[in-house]
Amino acid sequence: MTVAAGRVSRVTVTPVAFRDPPLLNVVGVHQPYVLRAIVQVHTDEGLVGLGETYADRAHLGRLEAVAAALPGADVFDLNALRRVVVETLGASTGGAGASFGGMLEVSSAVDTVVAPFEVALLDLQGRALGRPVSDLLGGAVRGRVPYSAYLFYKWAGHPGHDDDTWGEGRTPEQMVAQARRMVSEYGFTAIKLKGGVHPPEHEIETVEALAAAFPGHALRLDPNGAWTVETAIGVADRLAGVLEYLEDPTPGIDGMAALSRHTGLPLATNMCVIAFEHLKPAVAADAVQVVLSDHHLWGGLRRSALLGGICETFGLGLSMHSNSHLGVSLAAMTHLAATTPNLTYACDTHYPWKTEEVVKPGVLEFREGGVAVPTGPGLGVELDEDALAALHEQYVRCGQRGREDTAYMRTVVPAFTPNTARW
Amino acid sequence: MTVAAGRVSRVTVTPVAFRDPPLLNVVGVHQPYVLRAIVQVHTDEGLVGLGETYADRAHLGRLEAVAAALPGADVFDLNALRRVVVETLGASTGGAGASFGGMLEVSSAVDTVVAPFEVALLDLQGRALGRPVSDLLGGAVRGRVPYSAYLFYKWAGHPGHDDDTWGEGRTPEQMVAQARRMVSEYGFTAIKLKGGVHPPEHEIETVEALAAAFPGHALRLDPNGAWTVETAIGVADRLAGVLEYLEDPTPGIDGMAALSRHTGLPLATNMCVIAFEHLKPAVAADAVQVVLSDHHLWGGLRRSALLGGICETFGLGLSMHSNSHLGVSLAAMTHLAATTPNLTYACDTHYPWKTEEVVKPGVLEFREGGVAVPTGPGLGVELDEDALAALHEQYVRCGQRGREDTAYMRTVVPAFTPNTARW
Repeated sequence: MTVAAGRVSRVTVTPVAFRDPPLLNVVGVHQPYVLRAIVQVHTDEGLVGLGETYADRAHLGRLEAVAAALPGADVFDLNALRRVVVETLGASTGGAGASFGGMLEVSSAVDTVVAPFEVALLDLQGRALGRPVSDLLGGAVRGRVPYSAYLFYKWAGHPGHDDDTWGEGRTPEQMVAQARRMVSEYGFTAIKLKGGVHPPEHEIETVEALAAAFPGHALRLDPNGAWTVETAIGVADRLAGVLEYLEDPTPGIDGMAALSRHTGLPLATNMCVIAFEHLKPAVAADAVQVVLSDHHLWGGLRRSALLGGICETFGLGLSMHSNSHLGVSLAAMTHLAATTPNLTYACDTHYPWKTEEVVKPGVLEFREGGVAVPTGPGLGVELDEDALAALHEQYVRCGQRGREDTAYMRTVVPAFTPNTARW
Repeated sequence: MTVAAGRVSRVTVTPVAFRDPPLLNVVGVHQPYVLRAIVQVHTDEGLVGLGETYADRAHLGRLEAVAAALPGADVFDLNALRRVVVETLGASTGGAGASFGGMLEVSSAVDTVVAPFEVALLDLQGRALGRPVSDLLGGAVRGRVPYSAYLFYKWAGHPGHDDDTWGEGRTPEQMVAQARRMVSEYGFTAIKLKGGVHPPEHEIETVEALAAAFPGHALRLDPNGAWTVETAIGVADRLAGVLEYLEDPTPGIDGMAALSRHTGLPLATNMCVIAFEHLKPAVAADAVQVVLSDHHLWGGLRRSALLGGICETFGLGLSMHSNSHLGVSLAAMTHLAATTPNLTYACDTHYPWKTEEVVKPGVLEFREGGVAVPTGPGLGVELDEDALAALHEQYVRCGQRGREDTAYMRTVVPAFTPNTARW
């Protein structure tokens, strides 16, 4: 028998906006809305595959160009997808980091543009097969993927609006309360604190308060490169027995390598190793001990599996990064994590901060600190077309067209400067 | 719809022996027969998937243990296959190199034992889907895979038997004639000389004669580590403008690294980097510029694709090694090479030396220096059950139960010692 998964007949890219609390980070504060793009790849057999990615203006333009070029492609030919992306982007492949508020940069947008289409093609393959995407990635080695509670320092609410249900997150006590709500609602057994917002001493005190309140939990701190190497050495000394890893304490491979020579605390990164081009220099410098994968950045699920294999081969730990995202991405992240044997850390996710969604409920639920791997065909999630239309309408109305954490912060704190290696 | 690829119901492992000419190498000479094992994985849906691997006694024992443990496994669950192999081998995983006549060793047999079953499961997935294995590996980037003419110094025939059709291969003139037959029959545009048999000066003269006779062809020399670093430096200086790469001139990562610091000639290996454990030290030492993949050794097609991605990421070239093999392996090698974008060297194969086969004719043909990627479901080849039975009978009769190039050589040259770093 032959499975008629078919060829791509039509691709739509729908920008959406969903509400986000005022979460603080090294470059500023999250705007009122997160922008995402939902990719739908239709086949001549009537199937639809889903992908999700960033939706800043530059990225959307690239997605739309690829969407126009993809019809006719075989849904199993992932190498052809890559060729289409390379040919479509042509010489203008630089600057893939616009969705990171200025925090990240890679030299080529190819992997970032490939990613949502690759996920959609795998979704289509799975749907044609009647098999979950996890089967296409080699089979789930765990039925439930653990995620971490992702804490943020935050304002009580967006300026000019009522406080959100989380309220202010500033003092160690407030952050413990934030963690307690996350842990009690979802059962997380790992806790990550996004730092780089307050002076290091304040963030150390927050971690110590979390350690006292959650003695059995794995703790992480991620200041997004806010510290000098000297400062980072001091923090690493203080928190060496407290954290499971310290994420991006200081910027760059050289800085991380310098710190690494001074501490036994594992160093993790989603800033200095965010593309395949960074792996060779990072390994040569022995700069990091844990790499955070992210299929949106690393070119999709198959390329992220390659990253996993590289980490295993070169003795690096593997965890997973998250931006703000919707359910299509959560499903993809869960299939990937489930099939990556050496992804032994709980994955990061912004998901609990989210109050709006584009996929139908019932499949993706946080229980016992994790998400059960969807068992339906493909990604195992279905779009709610009404919700998609509503969030697209919200995108049209909201006026945001990129991620601008710093500019938004300056509407409140005019003198704000991004904090990289500030302390 | 759901594709009922099903679960493994039964696995057979059939040792076979096929005739091989007296091809010389660093550890001795090929025996009259090559031993291979044909793996057939049956499913409860009535499909059969094929794999092929070595068949020395130790390896066969491990294959049979896994064959007994595999029924019930889902054909898409490659991670489960790996678990079954790890559990079945238990603590006795060492010594996977018995099929290499003493030339190679890895610390674990897991990848080597996984390989034929993984190929068979991919064959089954493809058969269930009605898709070639190349589609499961991301899609063919080339419709025809180039192979190299693989020259051997050789005796005119096995002792006590008539000369074979190739005759003696000893002098440069004889080796040019051997190459001319290969090139004219199959159209190869790359030529590899297996060396390590004669003193380096003789092998240099052979390469120079080949270069003069085939001015447009890519040339390689592989003495299997027969030389000291000092000797290798001298050969590299002589052949720097003549070879596309020099394969394993001297043993070990340290030796190759020392040579690498003295020459701009790319160094390739299938001896010092033959398992994932070797990649980190080889990269750290900058020991080699080209890795020869081999899905039999590296754990199957998906793991070999991982090796390909690692080579791309760390700036290493990628080529493909061959042992003596039958058509099941040639089909698997061809699907793998076709789907590996950075496998840009012509692959090695012993195939033209072979006069017996277990797959039905018509799919695998060497034309224009390469093999067209099979387009049928799965691997695209079918077993000839009569041929399988005949070659199994030959295995039973021939008395060989392992590869013993050195012992066989000593029946003719009693004082022979393997030549590693001899010159």
